[in-house]
Amino acid sequence: MQPPATPYLVIDAAVMDANLRRMQAFVDESGIALRPHAKTHKLVEVARHQLELGARGLTVATIGEAEVFAAAGVRDIFIGNPVVTSTPDRLRALTESVRLTVALDSVEGARRLSGIDGLHALVEIDCGLGRTGVEPAGAASIARAASDCGLLVNGVFTFPGQSYSPGAGPGAAAAEASALAAARGELVAAGFVVEVVSGGSTPSAPWTGSGVTETRPGVYVFNDAQQVALGVAAPNEVALSIRSTVISTPVPGRIVLDAGSKVLAADRPPYVTGHGLLPAHPDAVIDRIWEHHGVVDVSRCTNPPRLGDVLDVWPNHVCTAVNLSDEVYVRQGGELVERWSVAARGRNR
Amino acid sequence: MQPPATPYLVIDAAVMDANLRRMQAFVDESGIALRPHAKTHKLVEVARHQLELGARGLTVATIGEAEVFAAAGVRDIFIGNPVVTSTPDRLRALTESVRLTVALDSVEGARRLSGIDGLHALVEIDCGLGRTGVEPAGAASIARAASDCGLLVNGVFTFPGQSYSPGAGPGAAAAEASALAAARGELVAAGFVVEVVSGGSTPSAPWTGSGVTETRPGVYVFNDAQQVALGVAAPNEVALSIRSTVISTPVPGRIVLDAGSKVLAADRPPYVTGHGLLPAHPDAVIDRIWEHHGVVDVSRCTNPPRLGDVLDVWPNHVCTAVNLSDEVYVRQGGELVERWSVAARGRNR
Repeated sequence: MQPPATPYLVIDAAVMDANLRRMQAFVDESGIALRPHAKTHKLVEVARHQLELGARGLTVATIGEAEVFAAAGVRDIFIGNPVVTSTPDRLRALTESVRLTVALDSVEGARRLSGIDGLHALVEIDCGLGRTGVEPAGAASIARAASDCGLLVNGVFTFPGQSYSPGAGPGAAAAEASALAAARGELVAAGFVVEVVSGGSTPSAPWTGSGVTETRPGVYVFNDAQQVALGVAAPNEVALSIRSTVISTPVPGRIVLDAGSKVLAADRPPYVTGHGLLPAHPDAVIDRIWEHHGVVDVSRCTNPPRLGDVLDVWPNHVCTAVNLSDEVYVRQGGELVERWSVAARGRNR
Repeated sequence: MQPPATPYLVIDAAVMDANLRRMQAFVDESGIALRPHAKTHKLVEVARHQLELGARGLTVATIGEAEVFAAAGVRDIFIGNPVVTSTPDRLRALTESVRLTVALDSVEGARRLSGIDGLHALVEIDCGLGRTGVEPAGAASIARAASDCGLLVNGVFTFPGQSYSPGAGPGAAAAEASALAAARGELVAAGFVVEVVSGGSTPSAPWTGSGVTETRPGVYVFNDAQQVALGVAAPNEVALSIRSTVISTPVPGRIVLDAGSKVLAADRPPYVTGHGLLPAHPDAVIDRIWEHHGVVDVSRCTNPPRLGDVLDVWPNHVCTAVNLSDEVYVRQGGELVERWSVAARGRNR
């Protein structure tokens, strides 16, 4: 296949396959179920591969994402965000073909989902991130309200997003296990059968604690500059690059790429260097971006890229980068072999 | 029209129309041509309205954007980024129906566009931003190379992006006028007829200096939280909002919206407060975002939003927000009246 015009996204099939198998092997050895978050890849081809390798089902962020993967044949989906919707009929329609589970973190949220037969729910616990979710002590009242509204309460979940800081994976996993155990205890004491105790993020997954039955990492499929900076992924475990052309070399020490925030995304946590990495030029720093420009300081490079060169860029955060492109290319043995539609791109609702 | 599920983008038609007319009236009074940057709105409906009101043509960022607007009938398009492409045939095809102009900032770039009949070019000048473009003294050699390669050199342009800082509009406009005048002088001295002296950004446009023949603002069509923070736009001049639902109220003083970085975008310049504004709740601060969560500190609000409330959010940077959604809704007299496809969304190449 001929390479398209830049900038475009390319997946290294062998690296991705190794990433998927490594995580599946880890959870299999640990006796944990894997329910990968599909918001990272948004690709039906990858979802199917994850399920073939042994994933229990998928996690998604929105009803729209659930619809895409349900249409692709996925039969067990968890919407991992509190669902407060003006379109309950879409949930009803999904439950006809899918074992659908939603997140709940309020009594009022439970009431709004009354009357959707066969809808499962997990109560969201805050294990320290301070985003959504309740303290473990608040889990039972939400579970009871949900049950009273006809929802099938299967357990509890949390997102230990504090793992996104250097060295924070083990501590985040410990907080996750502790909060989930407490919430599980509250539900058991209230008479619920707790089948699912779900946690997970890519940086915390390797330290998943005992009592956690399921993990939901997303980024591990591709990894990115952020995971490399965190020490969670090795450079040879990064499976997705943005191919970009040098469009300007206006002064010595500076090159400009055609990849800016509309293809790389603008995520820049404090622990990364620049707006992405150039693996072939480790001394280069993408120090400023605009929508269609990536300005790179190459003053420390012995062999800086030249006008017209096409380079791999690793985005800081692959989830938001994938969400910007309608298609990705797949590289195998150095050749582009397939083009996949990013089927769930932009399905934010 | 029934409101769709949130989060979705909505344009206030009356406010947008006033924004478009205000800018057109300003350039008409000033004797400047308007060539708005369509990367902001990516909508053929808005492009047509801009042209009907008197815009000379459009600016776009990529060949792909040019193709979308050419297909919609636009006949004068400037690609305002240096074009270094592996697909010159696409430029050739565009020149058959469009007066197409590209940006150039290198001799090598000019050579790569040899043999495209009827292709116009403007030399890009750096007026202080330090991104693409050359010093005024370098303009003539690029123009000569372009001319030798058969390109039709019409003048010079710059982007005074340093205007994106509080109070920086007038200084940026002065730097723009000065650099463009110097570059124009270089081209005239080298024997070129300089028809186009083009500058512009939304924050600098009101201070456009003499000698500048054309301005290329983009954001003015909608404005955003960034323009309000810069003092460039009044709150009643913000024409695009993201409608978002409160999906969680986990602790007093905190609410969580279903709008995160995948709909608001993650742009956060140092001079704005939070990740967007809630116009109905000026004391609220969107202090943290994830992909599908906007966490809002409402501890200073006397009447904080409640679970299920649907709110307007003004994104920090409307260009990157529009690029995340496949469609926008249009509100007129308080009612949703139309749905437009974001035709140039994701056309990054």
